[in-house]
Amino acid sequence: MRLLITGGAGFVGSRLARTLLAKGELNGQKIERLILADQFPAPADLAADPRVSVKTGPLLTHCKDLENEAVDGVFHLASAVSGECEDDFELGLRSNLDSTRALLDALRKRTEGGAKPTRLVFSSSVAVFGPDDAYPMPAVIADDTLPTPQTSYGIQKHICEHLIADYTRKGYIDGRSARLMTVTVRPGKPNGAASSFFSGIIREPLAGIPSVCPVSPDVLHPMASPRSTIDSLIKVYECTREAYGGRTALNLPGLDVTVQEMLDALERVAGPKVRALVTFQRDERIAGIVSRWAKGSSSKRANSLGLFPEKSFDDIIRQYIADCEAGPNAATALKGMQ
Amino acid sequence: MRLLITGGAGFVGSRLARTLLAKGELNGQKIERLILADQFPAPADLAADPRVSVKTGPLLTHCKDLENEAVDGVFHLASAVSGECEDDFELGLRSNLDSTRALLDALRKRTEGGAKPTRLVFSSSVAVFGPDDAYPMPAVIADDTLPTPQTSYGIQKHICEHLIADYTRKGYIDGRSARLMTVTVRPGKPNGAASSFFSGIIREPLAGIPSVCPVSPDVLHPMASPRSTIDSLIKVYECTREAYGGRTALNLPGLDVTVQEMLDALERVAGPKVRALVTFQRDERIAGIVSRWAKGSSSKRANSLGLFPEKSFDDIIRQYIADCEAGPNAATALKGMQ
Repeated sequence: MRLLITGGAGFVGSRLARTLLAKGELNGQKIERLILADQFPAPADLAADPRVSVKTGPLLTHCKDLENEAVDGVFHLASAVSGECEDDFELGLRSNLDSTRALLDALRKRTEGGAKPTRLVFSSSVAVFGPDDAYPMPAVIADDTLPTPQTSYGIQKHICEHLIADYTRKGYIDGRSARLMTVTVRPGKPNGAASSFFSGIIREPLAGIPSVCPVSPDVLHPMASPRSTIDSLIKVYECTREAYGGRTALNLPGLDVTVQEMLDALERVAGPKVRALVTFQRDERIAGIVSRWAKGSSSKRANSLGLFPEKSFDDIIRQYIADCEAGPNAATALKGMQ
Repeated sequence: MRLLITGGAGFVGSRLARTLLAKGELNGQKIERLILADQFPAPADLAADPRVSVKTGPLLTHCKDLENEAVDGVFHLASAVSGECEDDFELGLRSNLDSTRALLDALRKRTEGGAKPTRLVFSSSVAVFGPDDAYPMPAVIADDTLPTPQTSYGIQKHICEHLIADYTRKGYIDGRSARLMTVTVRPGKPNGAASSFFSGIIREPLAGIPSVCPVSPDVLHPMASPRSTIDSLIKVYECTREAYGGRTALNLPGLDVTVQEMLDALERVAGPKVRALVTFQRDERIAGIVSRWAKGSSSKRANSLGLFPEKSFDDIIRQYIADCEAGPNAATALKGMQ
């Protein structure tokens, strides 16, 4: 099969690509070709795999090709992140809305030419939920909680969920939208996402670097590890439409933890010296965005697909440490633990 | 003030225009200029009013002008209807989605140039509600019922609600979305809307013309008269943001009636000979669309603005008859009653 991952050079995309290449198949079909489309170049190990084609540049420019170049499946992960979309309204509209529409229209044109609807998994986000003045947030965000997003990123993700539902209803694609919880611990550098600190307060101290937490310790939020997120995306791709249920987006599993619980876990796993590298200094902009996010989540539909969150945040930290140890930069990434 | 009505030559738009011109003011401001934008020419009586400017052609082409031409308020009613959008997917995307985006972006560019956010009322629709396989429809559609639209028209309306919420949050407009119930009795000819028969089974027999109802008599649906719909749109424009509450769309009032109750009302108001002109012949396409629509509605937020539905469908029919009697075509429109 020929598979496309948009955002294929990104954090989730590149891990998904590695997992799929290691499996060698998806839904019982051998992966002959894996196309990684991203505005940034793909990591060298992926680009070196003979099954991989790399398309670098804005997604909008690649969508035209798709009309003539069959793919059997798509993981659509490419996205501008929440902080970027707040700072640059047009960037968000272009990257999240126009690009998705162009992708869907390219796939639609193929079915109009007689092709089978392409299966597509869309990474939506817990950011579709937020408190509108008319509707306070429930304590637990369920699959069927009314989304009233309070960021442009959340609005755009939710609009894409609806486009995907309609293109699916019309038979233009076989689309499934899955709302990712905040994926932690991300390696590398902080990014423009307002949620970036959730990884920073674990990643930086493990590397021996001080980290400033911009929100208070009692901030509660659903988290998922990269591994469980990728397993979930694959399962959502592989399940039958009946098992997915309807055309409405579902919540992926998340572990509801406070910042304090994250830091307690860090102390248990890596010791008090590492924990002590995290200090608190409130950033009103970040704290304001985060205060409008989900504080807890449920994911009954994902649970019915056999998907569950990690049992503790300790497990999520241990997974990050194990990933670092397996990589080339273990010494730097885990310098704080030496 | 300068006011724009998109869809200003249409059924609701032209009535709204007449009501506003008769009032002479909106929200305490004198109406100096009323711009009617529509793909069809405005009715002659409206075009003849010295306060009226007519812009005929696709809305997309007018939006560019708006960047340079201040308006103080907008009623955004222009839309392709449900049947058209099912038949022509691209027409729906262009007329309902791209045009709204262009309108919002024109208004945004004005605030970026220092102008005050333009107040905008958007006519959304009860069609945003529908039963997804994962979520059956509740018996009563409330303001905060989860929208899972089952038509392209409903999807596009709901996407526009979210765009308007986000442009409002960013301070680019002062937007309010109001979900119209099915507006009955429409004069004139049947249109491409799947709901067209709801008017036809009253309008045609009153004119002495046989009418075929494409759904069964037990079909239940929320209805509103043109007059209550127009009063509601004006009230939603005039209310404060606090009274509107949040940025999420609200339901306008609807009277929940069955087709049978509509026909019983017709018999009470116009007699058995008129009623006998309606026969039943199922149209699977129409019946299929309508079966996925709301069967009852509540409108607490609109009620709190002082907006309520008619007390009976008899009142809605009497209103239609009175409107016909006041117009130039009374003899034709009410031929069945002679």
